[in-house]
Amino acid sequence: MNEFSLIQRYFKSIPHSRRDVLFGIGDDAACLQVPSDMDLLVSTDTLVAGVHFLMDWDAYDIAVRSVNVNVSDMVAMAATPCWVSLALTMPTLDESWLQRFSRGLSDALCAHHMALVGGDTTRGPMSITLTIHGFAPKGRAIRRCGAQIGDAILVSGPLGAASMAVTPFVQAVNDKDQLVLMDKLLRPNPRVDLIETLRFHASAAIDISDGFCADLHHILEASQVGACVMLEHVPVHPLVQQHQPDRAMDFALWGGDDYEICFTVPPSSAHFFPDCYVVGVIERELGLRGQIRQGPIEELSSQGYSHF
Amino acid sequence: MNEFSLIQRYFKSIPHSRRDVLFGIGDDAACLQVPSDMDLLVSTDTLVAGVHFLMDWDAYDIAVRSVNVNVSDMVAMAATPCWVSLALTMPTLDESWLQRFSRGLSDALCAHHMALVGGDTTRGPMSITLTIHGFAPKGRAIRRCGAQIGDAILVSGPLGAASMAVTPFVQAVNDKDQLVLMDKLLRPNPRVDLIETLRFHASAAIDISDGFCADLHHILEASQVGACVMLEHVPVHPLVQQHQPDRAMDFALWGGDDYEICFTVPPSSAHFFPDCYVVGVIERELGLRGQIRQGPIEELSSQGYSHF
Repeated sequence: MNEFSLIQRYFKSIPHSRRDVLFGIGDDAACLQVPSDMDLLVSTDTLVAGVHFLMDWDAYDIAVRSVNVNVSDMVAMAATPCWVSLALTMPTLDESWLQRFSRGLSDALCAHHMALVGGDTTRGPMSITLTIHGFAPKGRAIRRCGAQIGDAILVSGPLGAASMAVTPFVQAVNDKDQLVLMDKLLRPNPRVDLIETLRFHASAAIDISDGFCADLHHILEASQVGACVMLEHVPVHPLVQQHQPDRAMDFALWGGDDYEICFTVPPSSAHFFPDCYVVGVIERELGLRGQIRQGPIEELSSQGYSHF
Repeated sequence: MNEFSLIQRYFKSIPHSRRDVLFGIGDDAACLQVPSDMDLLVSTDTLVAGVHFLMDWDAYDIAVRSVNVNVSDMVAMAATPCWVSLALTMPTLDESWLQRFSRGLSDALCAHHMALVGGDTTRGPMSITLTIHGFAPKGRAIRRCGAQIGDAILVSGPLGAASMAVTPFVQAVNDKDQLVLMDKLLRPNPRVDLIETLRFHASAAIDISDGFCADLHHILEASQVGACVMLEHVPVHPLVQQHQPDRAMDFALWGGDDYEICFTVPPSSAHFFPDCYVVGVIERELGLRGQIRQGPIEELSSQGYSHF
C-alpha cells in the first residue's frame, strides 16, 4: 500500500466539505474562500510522541487532542475555527492506529464544524502538526497586548487537573477520580462557547497551555502591564484539591495543559462571564504578584513549561 | 535559554511584515487579510531529517529547500505565495544551526516577498513542517483535474539532476559538475516566473516532486484521461546525460525532487511557454504510454517515491 492510497483510504472519509472549501485534498494546495468581512487567523501546533503524548494513548484521543488544542488557540483569539491541514509523520504504516486516529480526527472536526483541507504524510519519528484556520470579524480578533490597567483578570474554568494527571500522584487516586483527571489531560475541551462573548468584551486573552502564571505573564509582557492575583479566587480543580491539597495550588498556578482561557475585561464587563472566575486585577506596576486574602503580596514565578 | 527567547532571538529577525499581515508571531494565532477578489491557497509539507534531508547538510540549505518546495506547490496552482508558518522540531537547542537555518529562511522568504506569520518550536526528532499560503484570482487556481483530450503536455525544465545527486553515481563525477548536480538537489528553484502564464493558459498543473511519470499520472487520474509521452522530447539534464547516459532517461522519468512544473495546455497555447518542453499529448485512452520517435508504444510505470 503506497502513501497515496493510504491518504485516500483514511483521510478521504474525514469531513472536508464546507461551502468555503472550493477544493481540498487531492491537489498541490487547497483552495479556500475567506468572507470579505472577516480576518483570517492561522495557528500551528506540533505534538511529538513522548513529549506531548505517549504512544500508548489511544490514537483516537491523540487525534482529538491535536484538534482541540488548536481550536483552543482560535478561542483565545475570539476566532471561529474553520479549516485544518494535517502533517502526519509515522515510523510505520500501522493501519489499526490510522483507523483510530482518523476516526478521532473526524469526530473532533465534526464537533466544531471544521474541514480537513490538506496535509502531508511522511515516514519518520511520530509527530503531528496541525495548522488551523479561523475567522474573526475584521479588526475584532483579541490579542495578548490589549490588557488595560484596572481590567479584571478572569479564568474560564478549574485548573490543575491535566497537569496532575501527568504526574505519578494520579496513580494513588481511586479509579473513578483517576478517569476524570485523565480525561482532562487526554480530551481537553476547548471553550468555543466563549468565542462570541470574548469578541465583544475581552481586552486580551490567551489559552492556558503552559500554565496559568506563564500564560498570564505573556499577556502582561505583551500589554506592558503587571498584575496581582487573589490566590484564594484561583479555581483549583476539586479533585486536585481533594487528592493533593498541599500541591493543589502549584498544579493550578504552574501546571499546563488545561486549555481554559485566561483573559482580561474592563471590570464592568466581568458579569458577562457568569461561569468564569475573576482571579485578579491588571496593575501599572510590572511583574506578577499574588496575595492570599489580605495577606502579604508576593512575587509569582512566571516560569512555564519550556521545551529546552 | 527558554523556548520563548529562542523564538524571539532567531525568528523575530525573519521578514514578517507585509501589509496583509495585521499581526504575526507573538499571539496565539496570526491575523491575516485575504483580498476580496482572491482565493486562498494552502499547502503543507513536512521534511524529516534522514528522509528528505541529511543532518550534515548546511542548515541554511535545509531552510531554503523547505521554503522552495512549498513555493513550488503554489506555482503548480498558479498562486502567488505570500505567508508561511513554520513548525520546527529539534532534538537539542543548537544555536549555530539555528542561526544558519534562520538566515536561510529569511533569504528564501525575502526572495519571494513572503512573510513568516507564526509557528511552533518543539523538542523531538528533527523535522520541519511548513504551511504555505498564496493567492490566486477567484476561480483561477489551476488544478490537476483540468487536462483535456488533445492538450499538449509540457515540462518547465531539465529533469533528473536532483535524483542523480542523491545516488552514489554522483561521487564519480568531477567536482565542478558534482556541485551543479548537488545544487539542483539542495537548492531547488521554484518556477515562480511561470505563475502568471500558467494562470492564463494551463488546463492542469503539478510540480515534479515524486518524479515526472508519477506526477503526470496524478494529472491523468484526476482528469480521467491518458497520455502518450514522446520520450525523445523529455528534457534530460545535460550533466545526467553526460555522466550516466544509460540511466539518464530513468532519472528524468522516475527520479523526483526536480521541482519543475508538469502542465497541460491546449495545443494552440504551447507557444506562450517558449522555454518549456512539449513532451506529449493527452489522450482519451487511460494510462501512461511512451514512444521513442516512431517506435513501438510502451506502458510507462507511474511508480513514484512512496514513503511506506
